[in-house]
Amino acid sequence: MREISAEDIEALAVGAWILGSGGGGSPYHGLLCLRRLYREGARVAMIGSDELDDRDDVAVVSMMGAPLVIQERLVDARLIARAVEAMQEHLGRRFRAVMAIEIGGGNGMQPLLAAAHLDIPVVDADAMGRAYPEAQMTSFAVAALAPAPLTSVDPRGTEAVITKAASWKWMERASRKLCTEFGSIAATCKAPRTGAEVKRWGVQGTTSQAIRLGQAVLAARRQHQDPIDAILHAERGKRLFTGKVSAVERRTTEGFLRGSITVQGLGDDRAAQAELAFQNEWLVAWRNGAVLASTPDLICVIDNDSGEAIGTETVRYGQRVTVIALPAPPIFLTPAGLAYVGPRAFGYDFDFHSVFQA
Amino acid sequence: MREISAEDIEALAVGAWILGSGGGGSPYHGLLCLRRLYREGARVAMIGSDELDDRDDVAVVSMMGAPLVIQERLVDARLIARAVEAMQEHLGRRFRAVMAIEIGGGNGMQPLLAAAHLDIPVVDADAMGRAYPEAQMTSFAVAALAPAPLTSVDPRGTEAVITKAASWKWMERASRKLCTEFGSIAATCKAPRTGAEVKRWGVQGTTSQAIRLGQAVLAARRQHQDPIDAILHAERGKRLFTGKVSAVERRTTEGFLRGSITVQGLGDDRAAQAELAFQNEWLVAWRNGAVLASTPDLICVIDNDSGEAIGTETVRYGQRVTVIALPAPPIFLTPAGLAYVGPRAFGYDFDFHSVFQA
Repeated sequence: MREISAEDIEALAVGAWILGSGGGGSPYHGLLCLRRLYREGARVAMIGSDELDDRDDVAVVSMMGAPLVIQERLVDARLIARAVEAMQEHLGRRFRAVMAIEIGGGNGMQPLLAAAHLDIPVVDADAMGRAYPEAQMTSFAVAALAPAPLTSVDPRGTEAVITKAASWKWMERASRKLCTEFGSIAATCKAPRTGAEVKRWGVQGTTSQAIRLGQAVLAARRQHQDPIDAILHAERGKRLFTGKVSAVERRTTEGFLRGSITVQGLGDDRAAQAELAFQNEWLVAWRNGAVLASTPDLICVIDNDSGEAIGTETVRYGQRVTVIALPAPPIFLTPAGLAYVGPRAFGYDFDFHSVFQA
Repeated sequence: MREISAEDIEALAVGAWILGSGGGGSPYHGLLCLRRLYREGARVAMIGSDELDDRDDVAVVSMMGAPLVIQERLVDARLIARAVEAMQEHLGRRFRAVMAIEIGGGNGMQPLLAAAHLDIPVVDADAMGRAYPEAQMTSFAVAALAPAPLTSVDPRGTEAVITKAASWKWMERASRKLCTEFGSIAATCKAPRTGAEVKRWGVQGTTSQAIRLGQAVLAARRQHQDPIDAILHAERGKRLFTGKVSAVERRTTEGFLRGSITVQGLGDDRAAQAELAFQNEWLVAWRNGAVLASTPDLICVIDNDSGEAIGTETVRYGQRVTVIALPAPPIFLTPAGLAYVGPRAFGYDFDFHSVFQA
C-alpha cells in the first residue's frame, strides 16, 4: 500500500489522458475534483492486486457515455461513489477496494474519487490498459467472467441494476440504452470482481504506469525537452505521423462520440495526409489511404508542444499534433482478445497487424 | 376468495380486450396459455382488495412494449412469473398476491399466468380500468405513490431492476428504453404495492368487470342478439360511429405502436368519416374533423358481427366496425388524473370533455 500524493494526481491526469487513446473523457474535471478533495485533507491509498485477498470484493467503476457530454455536463464527484454504494446495497456487502474498468482518460481518475468518498483504497490495475468504448471490451470479458450485475446512476436520481445479462454484448446494449436516456452519461459500477479475478485477469500496474508516464511528460516540459520523445521513451512507443488537423467530423449518437479527423502532414510527412476514425477512442489511422495502425494498438494524438493528449471530443482544426502508437496489453493480442477489440469488432474489414510486430 | 373457472377465462379474454381501448395487446396468446394451464390442473383464485391485509405485498405486472411485437414474438407464459420472482429476489420477501397494472387486453390475463405459476391469488383490481401506453398513466401515479422499483425481464436472459426513479416519467423513460432494446417487449413487475395502497388507490373490481362484460358478449352471440348492444348495456356505454375501416397507418417506434385509422361511415353515418389516432391505445376520435371523444374516456372499436374488440395492432382495411365510448374510472377525470392521461398529456391541444357529460 502506498499513498497517492497530490503530485501523483497531477501526473496521473496527464498520463491517463495519453493512455486513453483519445477517449475515456478528459481527466480535467476529475483532476479539479481531486485537487479540492486533497486540499480538504483527503488522501487515497493505492494497493497492488497482490495485496488483495482472493475473496475480497473489488468495485469496478467508470463514467459511461459520450466524452463530449461528459465534458459539458459536469457531475458531482460523489456520483461515482453513489454507483458503488448502489452496488453495495444490491450485494448486501461492502467493497474492499475500487478499480478502474479503463485507466484511460477521466475514467482513470474516477476510482480515486470513489475511493476518497468511500475511504477504501484503489487497486493498481484496470481491465483495458487504455480506454475502449464498449462494456464488453475488457480483459474480464475476454476471460469470460460474469458480465452482471451493473449499477447505473443518473444525477437526477434514477438508478438501475442490471442483474443478469445474456452476454457481455447484452450488458453493453442494456446499459448503453439507460446511459443514453440519462443524457449519454451515467456513473456505473460494473460487475464486481473478486481479488482472485483481479490478480488473474486484471491489467496490472496501470495506475502507476499512468503516473510514471505523466511524470515523464511533466519533467520534459520543465526541462524544455521534447515531450513526444519522453512519451515514446517511457512507453516504448512509435511515432506514426506529424501534421496539422485540417478537418474534424464529429457527432454524438447512441451514447457514443463518432467521427473522423484529417491531419495534413508537416515536416517529413508534408507530402502526405492521415485520417483517423473514432468511436470515443481512436480506432484506425490511415496514411494516404493505407492502414497505418489500428485498435488494439493504442493510437494517441499528442499536442506537439505540450505533450498533452488530445481527445476525440477536444480535437479541433489547426492543432499541430503527432500521432503515435503505444503497445496494447498482451491479452488483447490473442485471438479471443482481438474478437472483442480488433478492427473487425468495430466493423472494419481487415486483420490486425501491430505496428510493433517486425 | 373465489376460484376463476375455465369459462371465466374465456369471458375475461373477451371483456379485457374490449376494456383495452385498442391496446394492452391481444389477449389471445394469454388465453391459449391459460387454457393449457387449466387443462394441466392449474386453478387461479381471485380475491378482493378487502381481503388483503394492509401490510401485504402485492405484485403489479404487465407485458410492456408495442402490441404488434407482443403479437409476433410469443414468449413463454412463465416469463411474467419470472419478472415477479426477480422482484421477490430484489425485495427479499414473497408476494401475497398479484394484480394487473392494466385490465385492458392481454395485460388483463398476465396476472393469472403469474398467479398460476407462483400459486398466489390475483387481486380483483388494476390501476387503469382500461389500458394506457405509459407507465405513469396509472391511479398509483395520480396518487403520487412511489414509482420504483421495477423489474424488467427479457426472455433471452437479461434482467434489470430500476431501483430508484426521479419521477414516474423517469421510470417510464428508463424502463421504456430497456424494453425497446429487448425488442420492444419485456415482462415487467412494477413498483410493489401494499394492501393498504391497493385498497385506497386501486381501480376496484376490474377483473370481475371484464369477466361480466365478456359473458354478456358471449351470451349475445349465443342468442344471436346484437353484441354491441350487449356491451353498451353492460358498461353503460355510448355508440359513436359505425362504418368500414378505409385506411390504416401504423408504425412501431420507440417501444410503442403509433398511427391512425380512417373509418368510412355506414348506415346513419354514411355521409361522414371518422378518424382515430392511437399510441398503443385509441386516444382521440374525430368525426369530419370535430372531436368526437378522447382519452380518458375509453374509445373502443368493435367488430359489428362478433362484438370482438379490434386492437390497434389487429385493425385492418375493410373491417365493419362500431366505435363506442365507455366511461373511465373517476380518478382519471380529476385535474390530477387528466394531467396524466388527458388529451394534453398526449400532445393534443384541446381540453377533455367526456361524452358522458350532459
